Amino acid sequence: MTVNFTDIERAHRRIAHLITKTPLLNSPRLDEIAGRRLWLKAEPLQMTGSFKFRGACSAISNLSDEARGRGVIAYSSGNHAQGIALAAKIFKTRAMIVMPHDAPANKVANTRAYGAEIIHYERGTESREAIGAELASKFGLTLVKPYDDPAVIAGQGTVGLELSEQIAAQGLSVSTILCCCGGGGLSAGIATAMAVTNPDITLFTAEPEGFDDTARSLRSGERVANETEQGSICDAIVTPTPGELTFPILKALAGGGFAVSDQQTMRAMRHAFDTLKLVTEPGGAVALAAALFAENLPASDDLVVIISGGNVDEAMFAKALSID
Amino acid sequence: MTVNFTDIERAHRRIAHLITKTPLLNSPRLDEIAGRRLWLKAEPLQMTGSFKFRGACSAISNLSDEARGRGVIAYSSGNHAQGIALAAKIFKTRAMIVMPHDAPANKVANTRAYGAEIIHYERGTESREAIGAELASKFGLTLVKPYDDPAVIAGQGTVGLELSEQIAAQGLSVSTILCCCGGGGLSAGIATAMAVTNPDITLFTAEPEGFDDTARSLRSGERVANETEQGSICDAIVTPTPGELTFPILKALAGGGFAVSDQQTMRAMRHAFDTLKLVTEPGGAVALAAALFAENLPASDDLVVIISGGNVDEAMFAKALSID
Repeated sequence: MTVNFTDIERAHRRIAHLITKTPLLNSPRLDEIAGRRLWLKAEPLQMTGSFKFRGACSAISNLSDEARGRGVIAYSSGNHAQGIALAAKIFKTRAMIVMPHDAPANKVANTRAYGAEIIHYERGTESREAIGAELASKFGLTLVKPYDDPAVIAGQGTVGLELSEQIAAQGLSVSTILCCCGGGGLSAGIATAMAVTNPDITLFTAEPEGFDDTARSLRSGERVANETEQGSICDAIVTPTPGELTFPILKALAGGGFAVSDQQTMRAMRHAFDTLKLVTEPGGAVALAAALFAENLPASDDLVVIISGGNVDEAMFAKALSID
Repeated sequence: MTVNFTDIERAHRRIAHLITKTPLLNSPRLDEIAGRRLWLKAEPLQMTGSFKFRGACSAISNLSDEARGRGVIAYSSGNHAQGIALAAKIFKTRAMIVMPHDAPANKVANTRAYGAEIIHYERGTESREAIGAELASKFGLTLVKPYDDPAVIAGQGTVGLELSEQIAAQGLSVSTILCCCGGGGLSAGIATAMAVTNPDITLFTAEPEGFDDTARSLRSGERVANETEQGSICDAIVTPTPGELTFPILKALAGGGFAVSDQQTMRAMRHAFDTLKLVTEPGGAVALAAALFAENLPASDDLVVIISGGNVDEAMFAKALSID
């Protein structure tokens, strides 16, 4: 594999002082709804509101001093952009973020608030790759991809290191982890860590219905694509297909994948509000939705569920709160 | 004083395995709004969604085996009720909660979900004290008051023990703590702990405008009452007057008190949603409101802010999200 346990340990040594060691939460009332004990890894409490800050810090801290001094560039209008922006600020270097003109105003504002330079492109008529390549070459910036980058995967894997510590410290008996999956950086990183620290634990992915490329790819044994990238409320985790680097890891280590409806995801968001007091974004709540509502879950008394992020706007959150 | 540092240490030894050691959060974007660094003690993540679970566990664990076996009783329709209910369940004993007939349905449901027996009384025509005394005598139950109880104050003081650890571990330079204040159990407990562990740190209270009995009492040197108990959105922290046991502690140790408007409190809730991904209830967010909006705050670069709870219903939360 392109990423191994030692890479994750190294990433952890580079970033442990920068990231929040997020708590592993439990709620007796949520357990009652689930019919078993759930342990929720609360990455909305991570800096910038999602786990993406881990991978961003890992990638930037892994650059040579010279490359780091020149800066980084990323294509993203979401959590990766915010993670890169704050990480670059902390490492006192430049971050350019290439975003479509119609990116949501609050995401643009947040990314800018962390000090990044926003470069807009016209979706449809301009190529973000061409614009990015030109800027990277002009300013000597390093492109940090959102998941198909070994240092990023290793950074997300630090969630797994924390989990293994927390599982041991709290004496939990866990055999299953549910984790949301877009490009697969987070789930591949966690699975790689657990394969060494807790080989009896199996990770399963969770995705929105109609965008379950990873679940279908795991079933067929090869990377298959979603029919569309439009139409899900889970914008943070919709990708065309599993990653080139992440899929081989998941194929080797993951137990399979679950898909949940938007309605189930919003109900999970409401339960997280009510019982955990945690703000979750739709893409961040799909694994909780799977834990609560998916059929054919592994028979495991204690389930670890990754809640990956909380960057949601007020209107979407209010909609989830009003769901039955 | 009725409660000293040793009492808090003893309470901590009794309850540390039951409570969540809540994180001390930071958000660069929130810091920008505040104009200084804020460290947020996130008690919404405590079991039952508020710090009240600490005091409840402390009080129940402090009973003789015989008294604990018989059970406890409390008057509350809010966070104290939920704290007592879950603590009693964990200690496998009985909890009776005396609530007005018109208590909000979700608070009744939550308290019942933790296994407590709810006894309703008619506000105006019945006396909860008389009903409670009759039940206590009939079943041999111990009354656990929400703040004027040394074991409860000591339990809330465990927030202070955690804070002193976290301040040391993160190398923070803090001279001020802002803490919401109803009856004063939480602020008195924290102030008692800090007086020993961090004598250079001063605690200030935060209350809603018009319900700032503690701030006015601290100024006048004696316990004064609010004009009314009605009309604040901060239901969790509206009490007629500072506690009999808590006020002498605050008078000796607190630096003074701040008052904030409902509008400021709702803006603080929205900022906590947006930057911390934390669900806060109005009463739980007043110290954050003071940190962001109060005038004449102590000149302190790093401020510790206690966010005390997140038990808010969907309608109130949606209202806070829609505030300017």
